[in-house]
Amino acid sequence: MSGSTSQTRFFSEPSGESVEIETSGRTIRPLMALPTVLVDEAKLRFDAGGLHTTAVDPANVGMVGINAKPAAFEGYHVDGADDVLIGANLTRLKSSLSDARLGKSTDDPVELDIDATRTLVSIDREYDVTTLSRTDELLNIEPESIRQEPDIPNLELSYRAELDVEAFCDAVDYIPTDHVELGEFDGHLILKGDADGDEMTRSTRIDVGDVAEPITETPTENASSIYSMDYLRDMAKGLKKAKVTSLSVRWGEEFPLMLDFQRCDDETVLYEGRYMLAPRIQSGGAE
Amino acid sequence: MSGSTSQTRFFSEPSGESVEIETSGRTIRPLMALPTVLVDEAKLRFDAGGLHTTAVDPANVGMVGINAKPAAFEGYHVDGADDVLIGANLTRLKSSLSDARLGKSTDDPVELDIDATRTLVSIDREYDVTTLSRTDELLNIEPESIRQEPDIPNLELSYRAELDVEAFCDAVDYIPTDHVELGEFDGHLILKGDADGDEMTRSTRIDVGDVAEPITETPTENASSIYSMDYLRDMAKGLKKAKVTSLSVRWGEEFPLMLDFQRCDDETVLYEGRYMLAPRIQSGGAE
Amino acid sequence: MSGSTSQTRFFSEPSGESVEIETSGRTIRPLMALPTVLVDEAKLRFDAGGLHTTAVDPANVGMVGINAKPAAFEGYHVDGADDVLIGANLTRLKSSLSDARLGKSTDDPVELDIDATRTLVSIDREYDVTTLSRTDELLNIEPESIRQEPDIPNLELSYRAELDVEAFCDAVDYIPTDHVELGEFDGHLILKGDADGDEMTRSTRIDVGDVAEPITETPTENASSIYSMDYLRDMAKGLKKAKVTSLSVRWGEEFPLMLDFQRCDDETVLYEGRYMLAPRIQSGGAE
Repeated sequence: MSGSTSQTRFFSEPSGESVEIETSGRTIRPLMALPTVLVDEAKLRFDAGGLHTTAVDPANVGMVGINAKPAAFEGYHVDGADDVLIGANLTRLKSSLSDARLGKSTDDPVELDIDATRTLVSIDREYDVTTLSRTDELLNIEPESIRQEPDIPNLELSYRAELDVEAFCDAVDYIPTDHVELGEFDGHLILKGDADGDEMTRSTRIDVGDVAEPITETPTENASSIYSMDYLRDMAKGLKKAKVTSLSVRWGEEFPLMLDFQRCDDETVLYEGRYMLAPRIQSGGAE
Repeated sequence: MSGSTSQTRFFSEPSGESVEIETSGRTIRPLMALPTVLVDEAKLRFDAGGLHTTAVDPANVGMVGINAKPAAFEGYHVDGADDVLIGANLTRLKSSLSDARLGKSTDDPVELDIDATRTLVSIDREYDVTTLSRTDELLNIEPESIRQEPDIPNLELSYRAELDVEAFCDAVDYIPTDHVELGEFDGHLILKGDADGDEMTRSTRIDVGDVAEPITETPTENASSIYSMDYLRDMAKGLKKAKVTSLSVRWGEEFPLMLDFQRCDDETVLYEGRYMLAPRIQSGGAE
Repeated sequence: MSGSTSQTRFFSEPSGESVEIETSGRTIRPLMALPTVLVDEAKLRFDAGGLHTTAVDPANVGMVGINAKPAAFEGYHVDGADDVLIGANLTRLKSSLSDARLGKSTDDPVELDIDATRTLVSIDREYDVTTLSRTDELLNIEPESIRQEPDIPNLELSYRAELDVEAFCDAVDYIPTDHVELGEFDGHLILKGDADGDEMTRSTRIDVGDVAEPITETPTENASSIYSMDYLRDMAKGLKKAKVTSLSVRWGEEFPLMLDFQRCDDETVLYEGRYMLAPRIQSGGAE
């Protein structure tokens, strides 16, 4: 077949352990939006259970953990080993994938061919008489050179709210300030932002309805924490682009925020994971 | 009711004289576009006849006057006085209202709760299972600190043209120059812009059809004035965003331009008003 | 008729030889996009066969030649001479034409009235009760002052590919680098871009299917040339905006690229022409 012959010439065959994934723009681009809002590079681990990654941003404030199931892809094969670990340049991968359309009627086929040293991203598109096949070769990174994710302590959070993803993203959009206070009041999840500066001329409060349920036996009443809006906006953007279908928010008194998400297609889980955002601690002394 | 309890906690109850308005994105945002293209702050007066404002831009070149009828709103109540006067930060009010959608099927409910010291802007949105209620508290301004609008002399203008709002806005869009000559010729309203600079390489003329009718007994033939396009573009933008349904243009020889507008819903007037734009006077001596 | 009277007053009648064209946004704006991606001004020649122009960019790297048929226009008249030659400021002409809409249901009528010294561009638009007629007067340029196009040597190119215009434009969009290698391999048209710089971390290859046919008796095997992506992107943009309906690509070993295009409406040719792009020559010595 001439196709595989020319492939040989331009790009190298996978060396040793490798992963092959057949997918399309509507699946892989939303999935990749989840880590890229926080980090530029990450360790990706592939095994029989799918694709796994955990990454923390350079300031150690935001973390993301993701598991994508083999069922998310049309094809998923790990060759030559039980699991394959690579260091991926996510920014470049995202840029390469952006050529794959993800509309309902324009969902371009995508193939990933991954080994330790490089990732081949192939995107096909059909026209009236012409077929285009675009292949990008992206060099991978030494996994050891990538920032190690910290251990996550076991936290006893006070409240949980399950809400529409779009509602959460809109609530985050509404806050005009640099920080937000997220807490429980009267059984409601409340987000509150006070404009910075001496003249506090705008104060925003968002009431997310009757959804805050306690998740410990001794929840702190009115438990709330203050978070950076920069991170929260990035995470909301990731959730929206990732087309997640369910979202659970958990928090406590000056505790990290947990955003547990899942994208399902009918009953099948495609991928799931969690964003974690460290709170801004109210210092007792001078700032 | 828990809703009003939590409201009490976060924001103060209105003190003394106050106004409550129930409306929605499709009404209040277009209305507020009319003054915000010219000024950042304005005195708003509320009485049994509705909302009234007059404002002049800092350079004293453009003015706007608006009357919004109580019928424009789903609910309109002035409490504790015959009329209430406040100083509003329009830029911040517009920014707060921008969270209310104004599409045909996405017209978000908006509540305004206004007293001398602050304006509460509440926007509700429903999702599949979640209800979001966003409330902004905006501090108001001392009305006395706001620029006083000048008295408008009685002017005998020469011509009037009634035309489609979209046609007027497109005509303004077409003019590529810094100033425009707007005048009557042969029964037509004509806009004329000559490219600035020594090389007059582009000259634009717009003929607005057979619409210029004299409105005095002794109209100046070919009466025309020169206006700043910066202001005219701002006013056209205001008219377009305000979804006004009728527009009347009046002018004379080196006289201010009057743009009388109205937005109706069927037969009901929602709001009406006028932009006034001072002409650029042709100096006899050196510029 | 009052219309022609007022026309007389504002703009001069054509002097001597002149051209009158009746057309609309959907025809004239796409046509004018072809040269404007390369040059700011050009000589336009009008005769019984239509409108003809050839132009080369200031760096002598990209050329364009266009013939628009009289059948492309609703009306086409050359008066007072067999042919009329003018120097057109294309940038200003394009800007003036941009007021004419080109949607399916919003195709605004356009009239061009051209003589040696000036071009009148008239655009009409109808509203509910108002009719707008916008006329721009653009000064023309001395044809002698415009860069002379070079003679094109007779070239024996090796391969030709006929492909969907959209496929070609997408292929050009996919290349992320400053230069592209365009060549034949295994009967396919291949575009190849290697990221610049020391770390070659991204390499893109596009396979345009089974379309490269030899067009000489002795085609150079794997004939390829390197081209500047800046020019190729401009040309792809021109082809897309020009709504061309057929495209043929011809190339050889270190030879100029020929892009022959045509826009047809059913069986009628509206306009046709060619872009030519000089290759970047691989120097044997130091760069």
